[in-house]
Amino acid sequence: MPRVKVASFGMSIDGFSAGPRQSLDDPLGVGGTSLMGWVFPTRTFKQMHGEGGGETGIDDEFAARGFANIGAWILGRNMFGPVRGPWPDDSWRGWWGEEPPYHVPVFVLTHHARDSLEMQGGTTFHFVTDGIHAALDAAKQAAGGRDVRIGGGADTVRQYLQAGLVDEVHLAVSSTLLGQGESLLSGIDLPALGFKCTEHVTSPHAMHVVLCK
Amino acid sequence: MPRVKVASFGMSIDGFSAGPRQSLDDPLGVGGTSLMGWVFPTRTFKQMHGEGGGETGIDDEFAARGFANIGAWILGRNMFGPVRGPWPDDSWRGWWGEEPPYHVPVFVLTHHARDSLEMQGGTTFHFVTDGIHAALDAAKQAAGGRDVRIGGGADTVRQYLQAGLVDEVHLAVSSTLLGQGESLLSGIDLPALGFKCTEHVTSPHAMHVVLCK
Repeated sequence: MPRVKVASFGMSIDGFSAGPRQSLDDPLGVGGTSLMGWVFPTRTFKQMHGEGGGETGIDDEFAARGFANIGAWILGRNMFGPVRGPWPDDSWRGWWGEEPPYHVPVFVLTHHARDSLEMQGGTTFHFVTDGIHAALDAAKQAAGGRDVRIGGGADTVRQYLQAGLVDEVHLAVSSTLLGQGESLLSGIDLPALGFKCTEHVTSPHAMHVVLCK
Repeated sequence: MPRVKVASFGMSIDGFSAGPRQSLDDPLGVGGTSLMGWVFPTRTFKQMHGEGGGETGIDDEFAARGFANIGAWILGRNMFGPVRGPWPDDSWRGWWGEEPPYHVPVFVLTHHARDSLEMQGGTTFHFVTDGIHAALDAAKQAAGGRDVRIGGGADTVRQYLQAGLVDEVHLAVSSTLLGQGESLLSGIDLPALGFKCTEHVTSPHAMHVVLCK
């Protein structure tokens, strides 16, 4: 059965998955980039960005697993970009340049309709205005039997968790304090939703935990 | 300078330092014992309970550090026992039997006065009814130049953190989900209080993080 996954999702010691005041300069909010410190040196991340080299090992294995067998992604609009409200025009094409690292259909949750956007390398952004269930239905269909990854941000992950639609979550807990920002799990009773921790592995950069139903 | 420390404080992935429904059977609340799974096998813990053997290594080093140079402890009343409201009598003498593992003066925060309780092995429980600052003043004086450890529970740690009275926090984050219980850090902005993560070490059982001012 195809699964709905959250993967490589960073969280600080104090439970935040993004810092406050997200902006063009701080896509993950102030301080939020520190949550991804574990992934930047990995071979998977470097290859994704057209660079050679990179570290192998625990962090790299988790980064790679997050891309394995993914047939479609779902992103919240803030994860797609900093534009708020109606799209002023079609000039914003994502944070990732002309060849985004997805290479499959990506469904972007938004309240504002927009034509699909075909990028290089197999990524097409589709803009979904009728809610998280519709986006998941479309993503599952597009995935053609492969898994669907909920890419974030935190609010989108929370919505899918609370709706009981997620099968697996891989969190990378960094030794970071953010103090403010978007709390990932507050008010969400994961055991009541059927989750338990099925795997935990630590690297010098992060504690990786896998939560499954 | 003597320091005020929180040490060996367990926290779940979802940020809880105790489960719900604390009782005589579940001193750390339902499921809360899992937060301390890292400490039970250690040599320090076993010695503390009169047993030989036990594991050395990262977990044991942190457990031992938590007892080094401590001249006095502060505990919230719930950490001292399950009795609520006025003391019906003096029969409750703590969770730990006649020789508690403190071996120094221990100041218990309570709204209900009670005579000090001298136990075997150097532990004396003093009951403080005039608040966290008074308890800390008394503990510092009793510690005679050594450090003061805030033993918990979560609410007591939160109060001392929010009052800016803690210098150092060692958290042991376990790969546990509690779903409900006492959140340790929610609503507390540790960076704003001057904390940063100064050390993080992982064992197979826990991610140890040290937060210092």
